[in-house]
Amino acid sequence: MADVLAASKPSDWRPLDPENTLYLQLASGLVVIELDPAFAPEHAANIRTLAREGYYNGLPIIRSQDNYVVQWGDPDGKRDLGKARPRLPPEFTIPWTPTMPFTRLPDVDGYAPEVGFSNGFPVGRDPKTKQAWLAHCYGMVGVGRGNEIDSGNGAELYVVIGNAPRHLDRNIAVVGRVVQGMEWLSTLPRGTGPHGFYEKPEQYVPIQSVRLAADVPAAERVRLEVIRTDTPTFAALVETRRNRRDDWYKVPAGYVELCNVPIVVRPAP
Amino acid sequence: MADVLAASKPSDWRPLDPENTLYLQLASGLVVIELDPAFAPEHAANIRTLAREGYYNGLPIIRSQDNYVVQWGDPDGKRDLGKARPRLPPEFTIPWTPTMPFTRLPDVDGYAPEVGFSNGFPVGRDPKTKQAWLAHCYGMVGVGRGNEIDSGNGAELYVVIGNAPRHLDRNIAVVGRVVQGMEWLSTLPRGTGPHGFYEKPEQYVPIQSVRLAADVPAAERVRLEVIRTDTPTFAALVETRRNRRDDWYKVPAGYVELCNVPIVVRPAP
Repeated sequence: MADVLAASKPSDWRPLDPENTLYLQLASGLVVIELDPAFAPEHAANIRTLAREGYYNGLPIIRSQDNYVVQWGDPDGKRDLGKARPRLPPEFTIPWTPTMPFTRLPDVDGYAPEVGFSNGFPVGRDPKTKQAWLAHCYGMVGVGRGNEIDSGNGAELYVVIGNAPRHLDRNIAVVGRVVQGMEWLSTLPRGTGPHGFYEKPEQYVPIQSVRLAADVPAAERVRLEVIRTDTPTFAALVETRRNRRDDWYKVPAGYVELCNVPIVVRPAP
Repeated sequence: MADVLAASKPSDWRPLDPENTLYLQLASGLVVIELDPAFAPEHAANIRTLAREGYYNGLPIIRSQDNYVVQWGDPDGKRDLGKARPRLPPEFTIPWTPTMPFTRLPDVDGYAPEVGFSNGFPVGRDPKTKQAWLAHCYGMVGVGRGNEIDSGNGAELYVVIGNAPRHLDRNIAVVGRVVQGMEWLSTLPRGTGPHGFYEKPEQYVPIQSVRLAADVPAAERVRLEVIRTDTPTFAALVETRRNRRDDWYKVPAGYVELCNVPIVVRPAP
């Protein structure tokens, strides 16, 4: 894989869009999240509004469940949503349109008839229903909701920190992916309450701030690039993961699972 | 799933065998590992010898790679292996015999022609080669090795802390699974060196001791039971994971990936 990346061209990479980049600041470090506006546009817009209003500033991380998710939100549910909407339509899947980019993996998948990548995000697709959705891979960010399908609004977000819980696919809105600083979430002490919720408020991990990169002076932004998923370079990278040919591997798998394909991020040159 | 477990009978559970149970003690907490003697018997025997000799006591955790593995071993490679063997045959797969228990999942898998459970461990099986192997699911324990296939001996062990790296299957000896205390490994600070190795010895996390449960007085053992994987109760449990029918889920997946099946552990009644 290192060889493929070393041979990549500048055009194999894309910069993060500041309008779709969140900086989540913890005392331990910075977590950078890329929002995908294509699959849950109303959720992404609401999250942008909440970030701009400072809604998340000072909110706690309230849940850390081993091999599952870390989640933050308002434990009292009393914080004012401001101009953000309290309920949103269930953007769990979206109608597939021919203009949507899709780099399909030939590899079989049990959770979706077809899987691949769209604009750098892992997706499932169903040619029968003509729907597509973001897949719950490690590091993906979703929108917590109650039992009602329109009860999510982005005030409560979770990040996958374990084996891909793909059974959540199509049941909840997925809005993006952690592209840097995943370790500040994945190493949080696990909550000892049911579902990994922290049992005492003193165990909460405070979020110092969540800012939209567009609202941060350009000179202070974290300049990152993400590998494009619609290029021959990416196809070559996937193949190095499907069939590893170095001295260590004795039996190439001949297969790569969607969530085992790394969507590489690097500092912008 | 809670209903299935609540309705389970005592015979749906099996106790841990003290001869195949390791207690790995960290300052933060106790990690309990169940060795599987069936798939890599010589590796399991060597690890038992190393534990009995006190080989692992005081050894450091030297690696914590996000979404991959935590690993411990002798950073200098100078510790005396005692009666343990320095090299072992590559027990990466074993010949399948008709007497081996196998509860097959009907669900498709990209990494193996057939998958299922054998004595409570997730396994892959190939009817063509008549070989079987333990699968690299979250919490599984493997034996580090160098490029030579017989260079592993159990002195260096790793635990999966991320999305199942199933491409390692058939390339390395897997010997067991963490059955309690996984959070003490999964939350370790990530190493900042290549492959998540800690860059400075002061970052190492010391292992206080590794003991075989059989060498611990019976009254001091951690009494745990693991769900049997060859019962109707387990089949019912798998089905609750394949098709979730509670009020929250709107679209049952109709599928369960091998590593998303929980092999439940509980305190012995």
